[in-house]
Amino acid sequence: MIGFPQAVSLREVGPRDGLQIEAPVPTARKAELLRALAATGLPRIEATAFVSPTAVPSMADAADVAALLGELPDVAWSALVAGPGGASRALAAGVRDLEYVVSVADGHSLANARRTSQDALTATAGIAERVHDAGGVLEVVLAVAWDCPFDGPTPVARAAAAAATAVSLGADVICLGDTIGTASPARVVALLDAVWAEVGDVPVGCHFHDTRGMGIANSLAAVQAGVTMLDASVGGLGGCPFAPGASGNIATEELVYLLEDAGVATGVRLDAVLDAARLAADVVGHDLPSGLLRAGGRSRPSG
Amino acid sequence: MIGFPQAVSLREVGPRDGLQIEAPVPTARKAELLRALAATGLPRIEATAFVSPTAVPSMADAADVAALLGELPDVAWSALVAGPGGASRALAAGVRDLEYVVSVADGHSLANARRTSQDALTATAGIAERVHDAGGVLEVVLAVAWDCPFDGPTPVARAAAAAATAVSLGADVICLGDTIGTASPARVVALLDAVWAEVGDVPVGCHFHDTRGMGIANSLAAVQAGVTMLDASVGGLGGCPFAPGASGNIATEELVYLLEDAGVATGVRLDAVLDAARLAADVVGHDLPSGLLRAGGRSRPSG
Repeated sequence: MIGFPQAVSLREVGPRDGLQIEAPVPTARKAELLRALAATGLPRIEATAFVSPTAVPSMADAADVAALLGELPDVAWSALVAGPGGASRALAAGVRDLEYVVSVADGHSLANARRTSQDALTATAGIAERVHDAGGVLEVVLAVAWDCPFDGPTPVARAAAAAATAVSLGADVICLGDTIGTASPARVVALLDAVWAEVGDVPVGCHFHDTRGMGIANSLAAVQAGVTMLDASVGGLGGCPFAPGASGNIATEELVYLLEDAGVATGVRLDAVLDAARLAADVVGHDLPSGLLRAGGRSRPSG
Repeated sequence: MIGFPQAVSLREVGPRDGLQIEAPVPTARKAELLRALAATGLPRIEATAFVSPTAVPSMADAADVAALLGELPDVAWSALVAGPGGASRALAAGVRDLEYVVSVADGHSLANARRTSQDALTATAGIAERVHDAGGVLEVVLAVAWDCPFDGPTPVARAAAAAATAVSLGADVICLGDTIGTASPARVVALLDAVWAEVGDVPVGCHFHDTRGMGIANSLAAVQAGVTMLDASVGGLGGCPFAPGASGNIATEELVYLLEDAGVATGVRLDAVLDAARLAADVVGHDLPSGLLRAGGRSRPSG
C-alpha cells in the first residue's frame, strides 16, 4: 500500500514557465493556448509573468495576456512577478493572485535578480500588502529550494527558514521550486518535512522540473508526503529549444495519468490536456519532451 | 517520511532489451559495452537472449556473447530465453541463470511467441528442470503483466495466478514486466500486493519501461512497496530508433541517482554508469532518451 490524497490541485505553468524561454509567441497564439488549457478542467493556470521585457521578451505582452483572462472565468488565473514593480503592473492589469519568486541561494538570486536572497525575501512584505489590498492571494515561490547551479546544495534549514520568513511577511502559500531539476524523492520529502515544521498550516506546493528524469517520481513522493498542490506544464513545455528532447517542467498529462490511475481527483480531462499539449507544440514550433504525448496517450488495445 | 530499503539489486538489461530492437551491433562492440557495464559495479547484467535469430537478428550472436562473460567474473550474468530450445542453447553456451519470458495475456503471447499464455506457462517446468540440473536460477518474467497492447488491461488476478503457477512449476524468481510502459504507481503496488499474496517468499522484481514517463515513479512505488530487484538500461537504451527521444527501458543512471540520494545501497558508481551510457549511445549510433545523461549527470555548481 502507498497512500494517495483524495484530490490534488494542479497548476498549469506552461504559458509562463514553458513559453518564457521560447522565442516570443504572438499574443493571439497564446490566447489559443490559454483557451485550450481552460477547456481541460485545470483549476489553476499561471498565465504570464510581469517581469522585465528586456530580460524576458517572451513575456512582454503580459498586460495583453491578462486582458484575455476575463473571457475565461472558470479558472483561477495567476501571474508570476519578480518584485514590487511587476506586482503593481499585474494588479493594474487585473491579475490579483500572484506568484512572487525568491531565490533561496545568493548565487542564483544575484545572477537572476541582482539582489541577495535576503533582500528578495524582505520585499515580500510590500508585495503582500499590495496583493492583499487588492483582495488577492500571494504565493512565494522559493527558487533553487534544493540546489543552486552556483552555490550547490541549498541547506534544508536555509530553505525552511526562508519559507518561515516569507510566511511571517505575508505569503499565503509557499511553493518549493526545483529550478534546475536536481531534486530526488528522498530529498523532496526531507525538505517538505522541514518546511512544514516551520510554516504550520500554510499550504505548501511543489514545482518540479524533469531535467534529470526525477520529476514525476518527485511528484509522487510529494503527494505521498501530503502535498496537494503541484505545478506542471503541458507537453513538458519548457525544455531547452537547443537540446531536443531535454525536459523542462514535468508534463501535466503525465501527472494527470498517474493521479487518475490512483483514483486521485484532479478535475482534469486527460484527452483535453493532450490536445492542449499538441497545440503547444504547434505554437512553439518544435516537439515537446513528454513521453505520454509522444506515445499518443493511453494505450488503445488493438485486439 | 517515505520508506526506502537498505539496498536494491539492479539488473542491467541494456545489452539485451536495449540492443534487441536495434540494428545488429558487431559482437566486438557488444564486448566493449559489456566491459564498461561490468566496471560500474552493477551486480547483475542480462547479457543477451537465446531466441530465434530470424525473429531477432540482433541477438544472433548470443553464444559468442556468452563466451565473453568468463573474463568478467564479478557480475551475475544471465540471458533471456523464450522456450526450451533457447534454454538448452544458453546452458550449452555456459549461461546458467536464465530469464524465461511468459506473456500473461493471450494476445501478446500469440503475436510474440505463437502460443497461448497457458502453453507458455506450462513450458516453465521443463525449462526449470534443465536450469536446476545445471545449478542455475530460473526467473520467469511475466510480460504484459499490467497491460497488453492487444487484450487491454491484464486482470490483476490473472497475472497473480500466472506468478503462482510459474512458482509451482519451478520458477525461483518472478519478474513483473511493464512491457508497453503503461503501468502507473498505484497499479504497480496493487499488482505487487496480489502477487506477493500468491508467491510468499519467492523474490519478485520489476521491469519498467518509461514510454509514458512513469518508469522512475513506478520504480519508486515498487521499492517503497518492498521490491529490491529492479531492471534498467543504461541511457534508457531500448527506445524506438524511429522516434528520437521516445523512451524504452528506464535509465539505469536515473535509478541510481534516485537510490543514491535516498541512501539506498546499490554498489553502483553513477559516473561509471554515465560513461557506459555514453558508450552505448556511440555503439547504437544515436542519442539515448535518459534525462540525466542529457543533463550530463549531477549538477556541478559553478559558483
